[in-house]
Amino acid sequence: MSAAIRRRAAVVGATGVAGQQFLVSLGKHPWFEVKRLAASERSAGKKFKDAITESSGATRWFCDEPCPKEFLDITVENAEKLVLDDIDIVFTAIESDAAKIVEPLYAQRVPVISTASAFRYEKDVPVFLPGVNINHSALVPVQRKNRGWKGFVTPGPNCTTVGLAFSLKPLHDRFGIGSVIMTSMQAVSGAGRSPGVLSYDILDNVVPYIPKEEEKVQIETQKILGTIQDNTIVSAPFNVSCTCTRVNVIDGHTESVFVGLKNKASLDEVKAAWRDGYKEFLTLGLPSAPPEIVHYTEEPFRPQPRLDRNMNDGMTTVIGRLRSDNVLPNGIKYVLLSHNTKMGAAKGAVLTGEYLIKSGIIA
Amino acid sequence: MSAAIRRRAAVVGATGVAGQQFLVSLGKHPWFEVKRLAASERSAGKKFKDAITESSGATRWFCDEPCPKEFLDITVENAEKLVLDDIDIVFTAIESDAAKIVEPLYAQRVPVISTASAFRYEKDVPVFLPGVNINHSALVPVQRKNRGWKGFVTPGPNCTTVGLAFSLKPLHDRFGIGSVIMTSMQAVSGAGRSPGVLSYDILDNVVPYIPKEEEKVQIETQKILGTIQDNTIVSAPFNVSCTCTRVNVIDGHTESVFVGLKNKASLDEVKAAWRDGYKEFLTLGLPSAPPEIVHYTEEPFRPQPRLDRNMNDGMTTVIGRLRSDNVLPNGIKYVLLSHNTKMGAAKGAVLTGEYLIKSGIIA
Amino acid sequence: MSAAIRRRAAVVGATGVAGQQFLVSLGKHPWFEVKRLAASERSAGKKFKDAITESSGATRWFCDEPCPKEFLDITVENAEKLVLDDIDIVFTAIESDAAKIVEPLYAQRVPVISTASAFRYEKDVPVFLPGVNINHSALVPVQRKNRGWKGFVTPGPNCTTVGLAFSLKPLHDRFGIGSVIMTSMQAVSGAGRSPGVLSYDILDNVVPYIPKEEEKVQIETQKILGTIQDNTIVSAPFNVSCTCTRVNVIDGHTESVFVGLKNKASLDEVKAAWRDGYKEFLTLGLPSAPPEIVHYTEEPFRPQPRLDRNMNDGMTTVIGRLRSDNVLPNGIKYVLLSHNTKMGAAKGAVLTGEYLIKSGIIA
Amino acid sequence: MSAAIRRRAAVVGATGVAGQQFLVSLGKHPWFEVKRLAASERSAGKKFKDAITESSGATRWFCDEPCPKEFLDITVENAEKLVLDDIDIVFTAIESDAAKIVEPLYAQRVPVISTASAFRYEKDVPVFLPGVNINHSALVPVQRKNRGWKGFVTPGPNCTTVGLAFSLKPLHDRFGIGSVIMTSMQAVSGAGRSPGVLSYDILDNVVPYIPKEEEKVQIETQKILGTIQDNTIVSAPFNVSCTCTRVNVIDGHTESVFVGLKNKASLDEVKAAWRDGYKEFLTLGLPSAPPEIVHYTEEPFRPQPRLDRNMNDGMTTVIGRLRSDNVLPNGIKYVLLSHNTKMGAAKGAVLTGEYLIKSGIIA
Repeated sequence: MSAAIRRRAAVVGATGVAGQQFLVSLGKHPWFEVKRLAASERSAGKKFKDAITESSGATRWFCDEPCPKEFLDITVENAEKLVLDDIDIVFTAIESDAAKIVEPLYAQRVPVISTASAFRYEKDVPVFLPGVNINHSALVPVQRKNRGWKGFVTPGPNCTTVGLAFSLKPLHDRFGIGSVIMTSMQAVSGAGRSPGVLSYDILDNVVPYIPKEEEKVQIETQKILGTIQDNTIVSAPFNVSCTCTRVNVIDGHTESVFVGLKNKASLDEVKAAWRDGYKEFLTLGLPSAPPEIVHYTEEPFRPQPRLDRNMNDGMTTVIGRLRSDNVLPNGIKYVLLSHNTKMGAAKGAVLTGEYLIKSGIIA
Repeated sequence: MSAAIRRRAAVVGATGVAGQQFLVSLGKHPWFEVKRLAASERSAGKKFKDAITESSGATRWFCDEPCPKEFLDITVENAEKLVLDDIDIVFTAIESDAAKIVEPLYAQRVPVISTASAFRYEKDVPVFLPGVNINHSALVPVQRKNRGWKGFVTPGPNCTTVGLAFSLKPLHDRFGIGSVIMTSMQAVSGAGRSPGVLSYDILDNVVPYIPKEEEKVQIETQKILGTIQDNTIVSAPFNVSCTCTRVNVIDGHTESVFVGLKNKASLDEVKAAWRDGYKEFLTLGLPSAPPEIVHYTEEPFRPQPRLDRNMNDGMTTVIGRLRSDNVLPNGIKYVLLSHNTKMGAAKGAVLTGEYLIKSGIIA
Repeated sequence: MSAAIRRRAAVVGATGVAGQQFLVSLGKHPWFEVKRLAASERSAGKKFKDAITESSGATRWFCDEPCPKEFLDITVENAEKLVLDDIDIVFTAIESDAAKIVEPLYAQRVPVISTASAFRYEKDVPVFLPGVNINHSALVPVQRKNRGWKGFVTPGPNCTTVGLAFSLKPLHDRFGIGSVIMTSMQAVSGAGRSPGVLSYDILDNVVPYIPKEEEKVQIETQKILGTIQDNTIVSAPFNVSCTCTRVNVIDGHTESVFVGLKNKASLDEVKAAWRDGYKEFLTLGLPSAPPEIVHYTEEPFRPQPRLDRNMNDGMTTVIGRLRSDNVLPNGIKYVLLSHNTKMGAAKGAVLTGEYLIKSGIIA
Repeated sequence: MSAAIRRRAAVVGATGVAGQQFLVSLGKHPWFEVKRLAASERSAGKKFKDAITESSGATRWFCDEPCPKEFLDITVENAEKLVLDDIDIVFTAIESDAAKIVEPLYAQRVPVISTASAFRYEKDVPVFLPGVNINHSALVPVQRKNRGWKGFVTPGPNCTTVGLAFSLKPLHDRFGIGSVIMTSMQAVSGAGRSPGVLSYDILDNVVPYIPKEEEKVQIETQKILGTIQDNTIVSAPFNVSCTCTRVNVIDGHTESVFVGLKNKASLDEVKAAWRDGYKEFLTLGLPSAPPEIVHYTEEPFRPQPRLDRNMNDGMTTVIGRLRSDNVLPNGIKYVLLSHNTKMGAAKGAVLTGEYLIKSGIIA
């Protein structure tokens, strides 16, 4: 099937924050046509517009962009009983526990692109990042064979991994990476809404711990930048050490990064690596791709989440403050800013879907 | 002169934020009696209470604590013409440019303890941190001789250096430090009030650059932990690499620290070093000394600025989240929280004054 | 029983935010001795210190003040099975639905002072505010007779009512109140923790609606300032019209108030009414009473929640910006600030308990 | 001159926040062509792009939207020496003191539309609000005659007046207004950048006083809704009583409004008045006009500044929470939200310019 034909898509978890972001990203999408919406049993049977309206009359719509009108009257289905006869691809945005149950049901038949972490650390599951690791598609036939599925599951990375891996990939390709130390200052939207982050806990405050986040970033970064050998991923051979914190910011994860390079590089060479690193990918012309995957700014006080998170509709990782570091071997340090609920979540997953179609992984 | 006699003190820059913090710290102080207040010419000649009252009737008093009553009716003097005949010690809290002019005038006659950076990087000027480097007093006679002064100048460290150096000192003593990587998340009060940080710039935001801050922390940390050789300071032989950011927090600097140790230490040994590191200093019984200089908390989500900055009235550096780091040699990582306008500014300077008296450096 | 004997108290809902505030208020209290703590079945049987510790090791203690040590090892009981044989008074801090069930069980035997709204609008239930309406104790025997209880229930007012009623009482006594228009800007702590206010919803925002709050303030204000006639409360004969909003403030409700007076009063006369209004009450010497119930500040930019909420440990309503209003008859307008979780919740309820003892309502 | 010909415009104060908003509003504008930019002497002679670049390399561009490219290379002129030979209209965005000096210089020759308050309260100066008071143009010939000018000056209203007056106009037309009580919760951007609002002053806080703001709103509202009699404005015959506060919000003024109507109106009639009130104005097809001047939302928790301020690019006043009020005669109450730096400042002024052209007031 070519890119010219619109794939029929289902969005699972459509009433939640991430699911709504899928709807915004998929409204009038040239390659995908959303045919079905699914959520938990509580919403099943209601029109989408009713499923997001409380008894008080308040609308539980959480995106800045309005809900595309074509979805308002679709009847929400029970995710556990979703019929896939007319569906080519499923986008899921659900909690990890639920994902473990329903994603295999879908993957038996069609490709599943997920924001949940449920399958992220399985040996036969690729974690794609657009422009970074299409070669990991070698795992797709392995996964199908292992599990007896016609489709497959591919979760996107944790939102904090996304900007970091995008910034590292061109450096790893050109100079080799020896080690990474990173401290994140993450936005509250990353915690979702249930329970989310209470104003009482974060106002006039920094919370220096996000459970499981550091391990996720460390493992995923090495996996995403890993190589394929004998149809399995060999994690990239450098250590990543993180401290992840929460700050009082709505959207946009800021990361302070220190990198030791295998081969010495001048600051200009590093900037050139970022400038050129995604050129080939950007020639693919994917509908959700931004003009730049990473953008380096020379402004001394940037990137800042409020000012930079929406660059190219939140699909570009903005990097600034590149300096030499005198602790790590061939060290450099910089600050990056990545939109955690755009490229870092649903819209990034849609771009991955486009990427897999263009690359022929999804038929 | 013994500790039993109250030294007569002047506070210069008394109408500003840091100066007011001196007044709070020196109200009914057992060892110091504030005899004179000084500020810029604009305030000179007014009673202190009038100097901090605007024409609108608003009071420009910036501390949470009320102004000690004994200072309200003191007539503010012009800092450039301050008479020192009845003064034993001067505490200054003024901009660096002004400090360059007036601190030498005072130091000709008496010891000057300053929050300004003006003299911080001079070779013959010690930067004291209580319990850390009293041996740097070897520079005092050198400074006197070099400059022909009867007194001397000693500035406190930058507020961001304070917590870092306190956390490193016991590790350096016991295990040796090989390298330090630090990312700070600093409070807005660190920027003072002129111009300070605009709400418009920091609300829903992180500003990833504070001019000159990183250089200050890097240089000062090595200087404070340096050794005295031939009456000069030899900076501590490890590199410090920082990224300093501003977050939307009123008070309290949070720092994410990664340390490579010379000698391997278990996490328990590191905690023991912190527990024991200031024992001797704490036996001195200084009036402004807290029960602990550093406090390690096992609470997984701590330290947090809003919850921990006021531990022991802001005089204790609270450390948490100690973990192993797999990037730096014998690496550990932790998060610390230090009150930037208490131990990190005036009250820390008062404690230094007490320390110098107790140690006999100030007669 | 005289005030000299300590009453034996139980705190129900002890593990929640408001319950913890009771514990802080009752630690080493001269008139009350906390003998029993109760909470939901989930916490029952655990020591209090364990009941507030999560499996992650994090402590769920929400007050700025530490937990008084004497409570840490008390075994928490199931609120529905609380034994009252050795208890003289119960303080409850639970959800309204639970209060409807358990408060009558307790009130059969002993007085119950509650922060829940469950019984607030019953005809035979007084809502006491210290210094304002001790005469409403005439309802106690009515309630006992109606319900066949030996004890009684008295809930405190909604936190938003508290400051408003305190500011109105002296005006009503001296000039008569004709009408009240009020807009509140309420702190997030007023919403508690389940669900509380998400940072995502209130950061860089104002939420202009708090369900049921406006009705509560309107009805309660008239009830509290009402008169007793024939053993029933006749609501005060003036209308109250409110808009209640939520702002991004931790603690402290700010209220912009416009009052029409029955009899014309100069601004100085209004200030004098506030100055003198609680003189008699303050002579009672109650342990939790602040030096002033209302404090008028002439500072033009005050009251402000962050600067003024902790005046007298949050037990004083701070009023400022008194001006004439040209819309309401004999109109005045002002801004008030009341600490919603201190005088507005548990500590206010403890003061009410003291007040009822001193007045002989509680034996 | 017809609307089809582009007027040649100068923007004065172009480097400041409000001036930059003019540039954003005037980029590729169909009716205006910006020929000249002016600012203080400090910027004069520099290209605009250099005038907004600091020596550190930081760009002082304060709008969310990028600067239209056509302005970057225009050389900034000294506002006091601005040549108007080729200019048809001047937009000024400068401090009131400067406005008093330069606006008369410009008004001698051309119309001046200003965001400064300098001439707002002069008897012969109209304060236009689009769709509200074009009849006030009767003052233009009076002003010209009084002052001997060929042009004229018209300042826009204070940003806090704008939403209030828009909400009141349809009610005044249809039911008559008897009185207005309003409490504002204003954004920090309303205070500009010099000095602006310090994060230290507003974080976790509300500031209940904005100097001169309440008087401005009270006087301007009556003036804007006033009638023309004998070529002078007779202020609308109702009282307005305000309390203006600052909250920790970036953009968007929230106002809690209580209105007494001359003639009783049901809530549905009030909503209909808002729905229909600007119909005629909206048929004019002005380039900067939004689809709705006021929008009523039935969502119970709205309007909220973060969610609603950008409706129709900040040009629509969003109203919600309409209820009856039982204090004012025929009382209603509601909450409104108006974007203070869009319709409330430069973009509103541009719309006024279009309105004056369309109405033939500007030739």
